[in-house]
Amino acid sequence: MSKIRAGIYGYGNIARGIEAAILKNTDFSLEAVFTRRDPSKVKVATKGVKAVAADKVLGYKDRIDVMFLCGGSATDLPAQAPELAKHFNIIDSYDTHAKIPEYLETVDRQAKLGKKAAVISVGWDPGLFSSVKALLAAILPDGKNYAFWGPGVSQGHGDAIRRIKGVAGAVQYTVPVESVVNEIRNGSVKEYTVRQKNRRVCYVAAEAGADRAEIERSIKEMPYYFSEYDVEVHFVSLAELEKEHSKMAHAGHVFRNGETSAGLDYSVEFSIKFGSNPEFTGSIMTAYARAALRLYNEKNYGAKTALDIPPSYLSPKDRKDQVKEFL
Amino acid sequence: MSKIRAGIYGYGNIARGIEAAILKNTDFSLEAVFTRRDPSKVKVATKGVKAVAADKVLGYKDRIDVMFLCGGSATDLPAQAPELAKHFNIIDSYDTHAKIPEYLETVDRQAKLGKKAAVISVGWDPGLFSSVKALLAAILPDGKNYAFWGPGVSQGHGDAIRRIKGVAGAVQYTVPVESVVNEIRNGSVKEYTVRQKNRRVCYVAAEAGADRAEIERSIKEMPYYFSEYDVEVHFVSLAELEKEHSKMAHAGHVFRNGETSAGLDYSVEFSIKFGSNPEFTGSIMTAYARAALRLYNEKNYGAKTALDIPPSYLSPKDRKDQVKEFL
Repeated sequence: MSKIRAGIYGYGNIARGIEAAILKNTDFSLEAVFTRRDPSKVKVATKGVKAVAADKVLGYKDRIDVMFLCGGSATDLPAQAPELAKHFNIIDSYDTHAKIPEYLETVDRQAKLGKKAAVISVGWDPGLFSSVKALLAAILPDGKNYAFWGPGVSQGHGDAIRRIKGVAGAVQYTVPVESVVNEIRNGSVKEYTVRQKNRRVCYVAAEAGADRAEIERSIKEMPYYFSEYDVEVHFVSLAELEKEHSKMAHAGHVFRNGETSAGLDYSVEFSIKFGSNPEFTGSIMTAYARAALRLYNEKNYGAKTALDIPPSYLSPKDRKDQVKEFL
Repeated sequence: MSKIRAGIYGYGNIARGIEAAILKNTDFSLEAVFTRRDPSKVKVATKGVKAVAADKVLGYKDRIDVMFLCGGSATDLPAQAPELAKHFNIIDSYDTHAKIPEYLETVDRQAKLGKKAAVISVGWDPGLFSSVKALLAAILPDGKNYAFWGPGVSQGHGDAIRRIKGVAGAVQYTVPVESVVNEIRNGSVKEYTVRQKNRRVCYVAAEAGADRAEIERSIKEMPYYFSEYDVEVHFVSLAELEKEHSKMAHAGHVFRNGETSAGLDYSVEFSIKFGSNPEFTGSIMTAYARAALRLYNEKNYGAKTALDIPPSYLSPKDRKDQVKEFL
C-alpha cells in the first residue's frame, strides 16, 4: 500500500511532535515542511525532507494527501486553515475553546467549496478529552464531567503570553488543585469553577525596559486564556527560563461521577501522563489525519471534530482486524 | 420531538438495567417487553408497560424504533439477533469475545436484508472498553493496552455456569490481581497473560444429588469463559448465594503505556466503578441505541460495533450543542 503523504505547515514544537509521530506511524511519509521563514535557514529534522516557502504551498496540491497545520491558535490558524482547507485535506489543533464553533463553521464552508476534508481542534484538549467527555456524558447521562489539565506546560497559553508587547519569552504551567482532584476522585458531584480546579503559573522573561506591571495586567486580563483563573506571574531571566522551564512533560484528568439510579453511583477516571506535550499532540493529530483522509475518500467533505470520528477511522488496521483485537 | 420507541426482548437483569436507563434518558419511551415466558406471569417494572409473548413480536414492527436484545450470549442471542435484525433496528451486548467477528457478519447480513441497523456487543466490555482501547492504540501506537475486569460479578460468566447440569445457582466474581494492576499503573510495558491479570472466583449452589466434582470440572474447562484463567469454585447453599452474593457493583480498568519517542514515556488509565453492572450495561446500550437509529435514518444498514460509532451519535443533543459543550 502506498503511504499517506503528509505536509507540515508551520515549523515549531507541534511540527516536531508530528515528525516524531510519523516515525511511529509508518503508513505516513513526510513530503515537505512549509515555513514563512527563509526556507534556506530552516533545517528539517526528518532526513531528506526540505523546507519550502509557505507561498509555494499550492504547487504541492497533488503531492500532499493531508496537511498538518502547526501554527498558533491566536492568529495563525484562523487565517491559514480556511485558506488551506480549500486546497488540502487538513488537520489542526486549534484550541481557543470558546471560538471553536465559529472556526468550525468557517473551515467547514471552505473545505466544502474545495471538496476536501478537515479535522479541526484535535490535540489532547480539545480533541481526546472532548471525545472522552462526550462519550461518558452520553452513556452516563445523570452525572457531571470534570477536567483537569496538568501539571504541565500549556503551549497555547505560553504562545498567548509571548504575543504581549515587551515579552521576550514565557512558559505557563497549568496546575490542578490537588485537594479538589481528590474530592472528585472520591465521587464528589459538586460544582467547581475553573478557578477552583486549575491554577495558572507563568514564568515570563521581559525585554529590557519593558513595563512589567503592564505585562502582568495583560496576562491576567486576557479573555479565555487567563481571565477566569487564578494566575501567578513570575519574572525571570531568559537564561533561567530556558534552563529551568523547558521540560515538556504534561498530565491531565477527565472524571465523570453520578448515578444510574437512586443510590447506585458510578465514577469514571481518565488520566494521562506524558513525557512530551507536543509529541502527544502530534501523535493524536496523526491518528486523526488518517480519519481526514478516510472522510475525503468517502467524499464526506467539510470540517469535522473529534466528536464526529469513530474509533475505527483512526487506526491503520482494517476493520476486521480491529474487531478481532478490541472486541 | 417524538420519543424513541424502545422494545425489550428478554426480561432479565439487563432488561431491568435498560428500564432504569430509560428513566434517565427521557428521549426514549418503553413500548413493550417481549418474553418467552407466560406474559401474564411477567410483571414489568415500568408503569403501564405490558409483557407480550415473544412469538407476537413481528406484530410490533411499526411500533418499535429500536429493540434491545437482552438474552444471554451463550445460546439466546446467536439465535435471536439474526432473526430480529431483519425486522427491527437492534442493540445487544453479545459478549463472547472470540466469536464476535462471526456473530457480527451474521447479524450484518440479516440487517442488510431487512434494511435495518444493528449495533452489537455494546456493554462495558466489549463496547466501552473496546472503544477506549482502539482510540488509545491509534493515538499512541508504540505501546501496550491492558484491561482488567473487576472486582465484580460477571453476568455472562454466572449465566454460563448456570447452564451446567446440576447447577441450581451461581455467581462469578472477576478479580484483578492487585500487584499486577500496580505494576502497570506505574508504567510497566511487560507482557501479562489473562491468567496473571484476573482471577475468577465462583460461588455455586448445586442441585441435590448433583456431581460436584463434575460441575467444577465443567466450569474450569469451559472455553473462552474459564479455561484461560485461574478459577476458584466454592459450593454454597442457594440461601447463602442469595444472601451474600447478590450485589451488582463492579469495576474495571484499561491502561495504555508506551513512548512517543525514545525516553518520552506516556501512561493512560481509564478506570470505572459502578454500583450496578446491569444498569451500567443498560445505560451504555441506551446511548448506542440512539446511534443505531441514526444509522438507520441515514440508510446506513447492517451491523456495527462500538468501534464504528462516533461519540456525537450517542448523545440526544444536536451536534452544535455538543461542539459548544465538549470542545
